Amino acid sequence: MTDPVRDAVLETCRRARTAARALAPSRRVTKDAALHAIADALVAAADRIEAANRFDRERGESGGLTTGLLDRLRLDAGRIASIADAVRDVAALPDPVGEVVRGQILPNGLRLNQIRVPMGVVGMVYEARPNVTVDAAALALKSGNAAVLRGGSAALETNRVLVDVIRDALASVGLPADAVQSIDEHGRDGVTHLMRARGLVDVLIPRGGVGLISSVVENSTVPVIETGVGNCHVYVDASADPEQARSIVLNSKTHRPSVCNAAETLLVHADLRETLLPQLLADLAAAGVVLHGDERAMAAAPHGVEVKPATEADWATEYLALEMAVGVVDDVDEAIAHIDRWSSGHTEAIVTTDLRAANEFTARVDSAAVMVNASTRFTDGGELGLGAEIGISTQKLHARGPMGLTELTTTRWIVQGDGHTR
Amino acid sequence: MTDPVRDAVLETCRRARTAARALAPSRRVTKDAALHAIADALVAAADRIEAANRFDRERGESGGLTTGLLDRLRLDAGRIASIADAVRDVAALPDPVGEVVRGQILPNGLRLNQIRVPMGVVGMVYEARPNVTVDAAALALKSGNAAVLRGGSAALETNRVLVDVIRDALASVGLPADAVQSIDEHGRDGVTHLMRARGLVDVLIPRGGVGLISSVVENSTVPVIETGVGNCHVYVDASADPEQARSIVLNSKTHRPSVCNAAETLLVHADLRETLLPQLLADLAAAGVVLHGDERAMAAAPHGVEVKPATEADWATEYLALEMAVGVVDDVDEAIAHIDRWSSGHTEAIVTTDLRAANEFTARVDSAAVMVNASTRFTDGGELGLGAEIGISTQKLHARGPMGLTELTTTRWIVQGDGHTR
Repeated sequence: MTDPVRDAVLETCRRARTAARALAPSRRVTKDAALHAIADALVAAADRIEAANRFDRERGESGGLTTGLLDRLRLDAGRIASIADAVRDVAALPDPVGEVVRGQILPNGLRLNQIRVPMGVVGMVYEARPNVTVDAAALALKSGNAAVLRGGSAALETNRVLVDVIRDALASVGLPADAVQSIDEHGRDGVTHLMRARGLVDVLIPRGGVGLISSVVENSTVPVIETGVGNCHVYVDASADPEQARSIVLNSKTHRPSVCNAAETLLVHADLRETLLPQLLADLAAAGVVLHGDERAMAAAPHGVEVKPATEADWATEYLALEMAVGVVDDVDEAIAHIDRWSSGHTEAIVTTDLRAANEFTARVDSAAVMVNASTRFTDGGELGLGAEIGISTQKLHARGPMGLTELTTTRWIVQGDGHTR
Repeated sequence: MTDPVRDAVLETCRRARTAARALAPSRRVTKDAALHAIADALVAAADRIEAANRFDRERGESGGLTTGLLDRLRLDAGRIASIADAVRDVAALPDPVGEVVRGQILPNGLRLNQIRVPMGVVGMVYEARPNVTVDAAALALKSGNAAVLRGGSAALETNRVLVDVIRDALASVGLPADAVQSIDEHGRDGVTHLMRARGLVDVLIPRGGVGLISSVVENSTVPVIETGVGNCHVYVDASADPEQARSIVLNSKTHRPSVCNAAETLLVHADLRETLLPQLLADLAAAGVVLHGDERAMAAAPHGVEVKPATEADWATEYLALEMAVGVVDDVDEAIAHIDRWSSGHTEAIVTTDLRAANEFTARVDSAAVMVNASTRFTDGGELGLGAEIGISTQKLHARGPMGLTELTTTRWIVQGDGHTR
């Protein structure tokens, strides 16, 4: 049985693989020239991009998209200029390809080098925001990879124009246009076939909500890097500096509640039930945070602050909103046990002045990032100095935490002998 | 619907996870003491192990196992001593846990450390050889991981005793016995549930034939590291030193034909059709290698050497036997194109004295290991100086080529601030 969508997606992946082979040995100067050409072309095509984006937003509006989603979808001249600047920032980052990761001369004289090389073909499946189209293409290109992109259907026209502009810019500097391709036109069926293109696609990175990510993890035979689900915790230890605790809790929860590194659960040491905890609850309530607490947290609520009873679902939920679960724990062990049970392994923070508590927490909390006296919001490629970021891995294989250019590469052993045999 | 096998496997994985949490912060001295206790206990239990092994072999013999498989299954006092020595070798290797992979103080004063930590729970699915049971347990333990093992059914009794001995030794030094468990008793159904234990098992490493590995890749929701299928190539360039070419071709094919780093296809430059190629074919035939060639290779066969016509299947096959496909190519580009089409991405070698040919080959052949003037047989953890080896990865994610202790770890970001917020 022929399946035209399957055939088309596999043909796209094969073209990507050919482009990847041509791209892999490209010098940094060529790749950076392509990135600057892309940035310039995006700015030059701003009118065309805005027109396509207007079409998408009008369709979204009549289709009932929420104001929030419509805003994430929107591109104007200012946002296009920012996207172009981000591409120029990627050009300025060091090239990860060619780095010698390990090397030595073995006792038998074999010369050994483990060198960093591109992955090959990177598949990206993501939701509405069209800037991800450009970010993903730029990061893939800089790391020597071809990209096969599948963006949200709400941004179909915008992404079509963005990919066109990028492909023309690639061709203008002599690189294969097929290094950046989209399978948006094939809809959800396209994703299904992309996930099964093992041998043609080297890694698949889903970026979006829990549903999208689970579906990819469940169905993909292509190796997947799971990203972005963050049920993050802040634990305030008995020894915490109260002012640091207040600002870290508030910042972790309210600075940008819709992102994966925002905190979702607050755990407070029982010694602070009558002192700091009521203050923290009042701070959060004043910032508009809806609170769900265990019995001891509810009992600590000051007058006028409502704390609803927390259910198991509250401990498990990534609210992504001004909403938080609050629990009281007897010690750092109980805090770690709670995190062990409920965390998604993204980011957890402890606020403490006690060295032993800090050491226990950092040694035993098994998450991608563990913060001591710092907001959970710092788990971010830019904040941690990795440059740009393609996503935040919550799995342990290959990449953990923010993924930059290095995480889009693999390695190859080069072994040089002089007629060596065993 | 309850499924008792599923429940039992998940309970095993949960116990492994608890054991992994206890094991992760263990000091090297404790882990090394456990490894020495295991080595001593294996030697002390030699009689019991041999008796169980005799039972397995008798059952295998009456069940019609081949002589080769019966030999791989066999344990005697000498082999048990070697296995114990290998465990002591693992104890002598450096501990990968705790290594600071990257670290810096950010401009805002945040102190950043990316440290190496254990994966957690490692699942291993493998075929007959019982030494893998001990190797896998030792490497998992040294890297701070709990292991859930599923060995070949032919070694059921042997593996049961080996796992018992290991667990007792763990308990004797105060480490959790559940750090090493077997699900052999649940048969193939056990593997099915192990592959779906996402969230409890951090990585699954299948080691065995193509069938086993494809089945795991196809069905697992747990992240997999694919190992060991090696359709390896040797390309002899026009500029090759003839004596080096002869010894490298012969060694790559015949030194140990049943393993994944043995060569399966020989590609020879067309300029050597009437000179070196007949000699290489004669060498291989004299060593008992069955030859399959393209038209030009067949035409080059000297008197008395049979070269059968090669089919597409021959280019694709990992013979794992004294059998080889031979092709003539016009240049290094054609050799690379052939490899690109047929290789499994394990190991390829070039024999050449031409710097440009060597550079082209190492830059463009996209395999885990690329050899210049050296046998394909060097792709091995021991040979490349990694110490012991848990398998050879042929995928690009996480680990590529021989996997040692480092490849059984992941990393964690530890971020220390002083009240830092965004």
